[in-house]
Amino acid sequence: MDVNEFRKYGREMVDYIADYIENIRERTVVHGVQPGYMKELLPDEAPQKGENFSDIMKDIEKIIMPGITHWHSPNFHGYFAAGNSFPSILGDMLSDAIGCIGFSWATSPACTELEVITTDWLGRMIGLPKEFLHSDHGPGGGVIQSTASETVFLCMLAARNKIVNQIKAKNPHMDEMEIIAKLVGYTSDQANSSVPRSGMLGAVRMVKLQTDNTFSLNGVTLREAIEEDKKNGFIPFFLCASLGTTGTCAFDDLETLGPICKEHGIWLHVDAAYAGSAFVCPEFRKYMKGIEYAETLSTNPHKWMLIAFDCSVMWIKNSSYLVDAFNVDPIYLRHENEGRVPDYRHWQIPLGRRFRSLKLWFTLRAYGVEGIQQYIRRHCELAKEFERLILDDGRFEVVAETVMGLVCFKLKGDTILSEKLLEEIMATGKIYIIPAIVRDLYFLRLAICAERTTSEDIRRSFEVIKRATDRVMSMHFVIEGKHKPTIDIDISPLRLHGSCDEDEETSGTNGNHIGDVSPLR
Amino acid sequence: MDVNEFRKYGREMVDYIADYIENIRERTVVHGVQPGYMKELLPDEAPQKGENFSDIMKDIEKIIMPGITHWHSPNFHGYFAAGNSFPSILGDMLSDAIGCIGFSWATSPACTELEVITTDWLGRMIGLPKEFLHSDHGPGGGVIQSTASETVFLCMLAARNKIVNQIKAKNPHMDEMEIIAKLVGYTSDQANSSVPRSGMLGAVRMVKLQTDNTFSLNGVTLREAIEEDKKNGFIPFFLCASLGTTGTCAFDDLETLGPICKEHGIWLHVDAAYAGSAFVCPEFRKYMKGIEYAETLSTNPHKWMLIAFDCSVMWIKNSSYLVDAFNVDPIYLRHENEGRVPDYRHWQIPLGRRFRSLKLWFTLRAYGVEGIQQYIRRHCELAKEFERLILDDGRFEVVAETVMGLVCFKLKGDTILSEKLLEEIMATGKIYIIPAIVRDLYFLRLAICAERTTSEDIRRSFEVIKRATDRVMSMHFVIEGKHKPTIDIDISPLRLHGSCDEDEETSGTNGNHIGDVSPLR
Repeated sequence: MDVNEFRKYGREMVDYIADYIENIRERTVVHGVQPGYMKELLPDEAPQKGENFSDIMKDIEKIIMPGITHWHSPNFHGYFAAGNSFPSILGDMLSDAIGCIGFSWATSPACTELEVITTDWLGRMIGLPKEFLHSDHGPGGGVIQSTASETVFLCMLAARNKIVNQIKAKNPHMDEMEIIAKLVGYTSDQANSSVPRSGMLGAVRMVKLQTDNTFSLNGVTLREAIEEDKKNGFIPFFLCASLGTTGTCAFDDLETLGPICKEHGIWLHVDAAYAGSAFVCPEFRKYMKGIEYAETLSTNPHKWMLIAFDCSVMWIKNSSYLVDAFNVDPIYLRHENEGRVPDYRHWQIPLGRRFRSLKLWFTLRAYGVEGIQQYIRRHCELAKEFERLILDDGRFEVVAETVMGLVCFKLKGDTILSEKLLEEIMATGKIYIIPAIVRDLYFLRLAICAERTTSEDIRRSFEVIKRATDRVMSMHFVIEGKHKPTIDIDISPLRLHGSCDEDEETSGTNGNHIGDVSPLR
Repeated sequence: MDVNEFRKYGREMVDYIADYIENIRERTVVHGVQPGYMKELLPDEAPQKGENFSDIMKDIEKIIMPGITHWHSPNFHGYFAAGNSFPSILGDMLSDAIGCIGFSWATSPACTELEVITTDWLGRMIGLPKEFLHSDHGPGGGVIQSTASETVFLCMLAARNKIVNQIKAKNPHMDEMEIIAKLVGYTSDQANSSVPRSGMLGAVRMVKLQTDNTFSLNGVTLREAIEEDKKNGFIPFFLCASLGTTGTCAFDDLETLGPICKEHGIWLHVDAAYAGSAFVCPEFRKYMKGIEYAETLSTNPHKWMLIAFDCSVMWIKNSSYLVDAFNVDPIYLRHENEGRVPDYRHWQIPLGRRFRSLKLWFTLRAYGVEGIQQYIRRHCELAKEFERLILDDGRFEVVAETVMGLVCFKLKGDTILSEKLLEEIMATGKIYIIPAIVRDLYFLRLAICAERTTSEDIRRSFEVIKRATDRVMSMHFVIEGKHKPTIDIDISPLRLHGSCDEDEETSGTNGNHIGDVSPLR
């Protein structure tokens, strides 16, 4: 493709994207295909000769779109919001065109320096203590990672490295494996599945602690676990606390957890993948009280701040723990970096990295702090509006407090009613919501996801749920004493997984579910 | 930004990108800034009110471009090629617009199924055995990862998990840590720095084996290491072999390494990050003989196949080793996946993933297999042409065979001459090349990187080197018996690092170097 063809097809793609977003309401939100559908539509081998790009453009509607679940449709209420916006798309276009690999400052200083500046911008926007900012001239700062899950793993490894070095300094006779075998990390029974998985990957014991009746982990539980484990010769070293869990958007109690971590030298990582963006609004910052005790935290602008995946921002108070844990030669690089800008390849698991701060910069400037606040507040108000509709109906109960953009509800009575309700809703193909199970309680989650979701969209979504409920209420069930899930909604994966990240949580269930019901459409 | 503004600024961005690529030769290839330059140009905080996008567009030239090293300039000869092309940019635009998070099949079947199909396309294009393809209906297949470095880590963890389970099955009394403490993995002294780093991250011993005088690792060396380590009670479990090392583009001898791995039950991972793309040309496949012994391999279309970062493709013969190693509940998911499409979140470290196969699909179709072959062959011919110019001059020696798109050369005589030559070349700002050190041998690397590099570009690059050489030859040096690096080119990082990935390898050196000499420009 020569440069003039790019001008032509670039314009066409811009218009295609504009039309897609503008008219997304008219598309059936859920894909309508069966596993393997694309194999029938594409050849087994790449073409020998290059094809005309206009033929490729035609295949987008023919081959790709039937297999798309439209995450940015106002009728999409699954998982949590996935970030996206026009300025973000423009930022990625420029990033691709420059195409630098920013593994060190020198390979393209702009790539590193804009990331330093924009992660500071974002840190100030959500009210982080200055220890987390590059501008504090301390060892702290922010970095863009691919996902919150990769960040948990990274921080767990850095924490493991720190404690091993501390213990070896005092007990030179102990070897690394001997120490790692005694380590224990903690998280809550509501945490992202990537936390226990990080333990698995890092060959470290990771324990899920029980949350209270608001699905929140508190200091009393943590202290008991630490004392018990220490009595048994284990070494507590890491806690991953969650602000805004996937199941119910619950918040762990940093104010009681933090001091205990400090007292016991435990690395506190705070996973605020979804809720972190909301702290741009001062009224929500009460949910992050105690954040000053964290060594690291992360939030995903690619979830709830209008940035396209991937852009997960992580902050650390002392980056040397990270650099040293990953550096093939720490002594040399400590010198190299002294008083200079970071070489971000040492702040992450992969070596290569692209210019992701451009889309963050474009989006924060195009919306401004006030524009982002409006967007967050509107989503939270729409969630409240939906909650009112659900409660006024009288046939539903809300199972967790509606704090941000998520409403967790079920039909009063036996679980099977809510399961059937989900079947009826999904069979319409008009809206997309997903179920969750927390401590054997089965419920439905409706998240506000699209940037342009309106009050009218919410009322229309509620109408779909209302009519589906009418149908369920007219059915006859044999309610067994002990409920067994129907085959149509196999909820076992969720039960097995425990509560997971919005990525992981419901994909198993939903994977089965959509697969099973699509023939009904 | 409303949809009409996006149509307007989208067109502007398309034209900006077209102009940038069309006129990239006219830009000074190396950035001309000092650390911290951007702090002076941007405010400390994000704007309160949204800004007009036309102001943001203006800042691209003012704030970003001065800090860019132009990787896609024909005057850029550093590291290895970084992939990029117009169809790839268009693919990422669409991926951003759809903005689905493809962690499971159901969240957007097209995202998973196009990845299954295009990784099969690519596997066939480079002549992989069918065990690596999804279409073989076995447990094998391809997946898009972020980088080759992350892939090495992932495969090492999967191999660790496999061996631990095997040993525990035979010795139920042994615990995981006891086994891991005895594991030993191997790679060559020329391998990517991410390999030893993977050992560090995974808390596993990773040994660098010595290569022969062609910088290639062979079976004799591996067998000796295995026998010695087994004698000492260690458990060899993993070998990362390289096809196309960064230092000199050397190739490990899979034909002698493979059978030994098979004999000892060692997981063979093949890192062909750069050279893998060349196997699309049958004449280069002799360098991958023995690939059938590999359990996993990876290559980076985002390096040498015109795809923008990130798109690192990995293939595995038995994906269950990967899925089980990373899965919070293997039993359930084995069932879920039976006879179905993969849930790729279990094939990678992060949970979330974006629709990266679109750019691979667009690019392979737009160029066709023959277009890609032409591109690869042209780069290799240009490298040969540069090698001839260097040898004909008489003052240079070539330190490693020129096999693909890389020429490794030095001035005859003491190292300091080549160091001074690099200084003189970089001071012109006309071309960008980087040094390397392999076994105390200091030399310069000239890689063919840009898609549109011509024979004329190569002759012009040689002219720059020739004139710089004339200047160096007119200088007077006190050559010490034992050479010490000058401060301008601190080569110690490379010596400390050993040979690293193109990302890592020279960034330290180069980081110092560019930082130090830019005032001269």
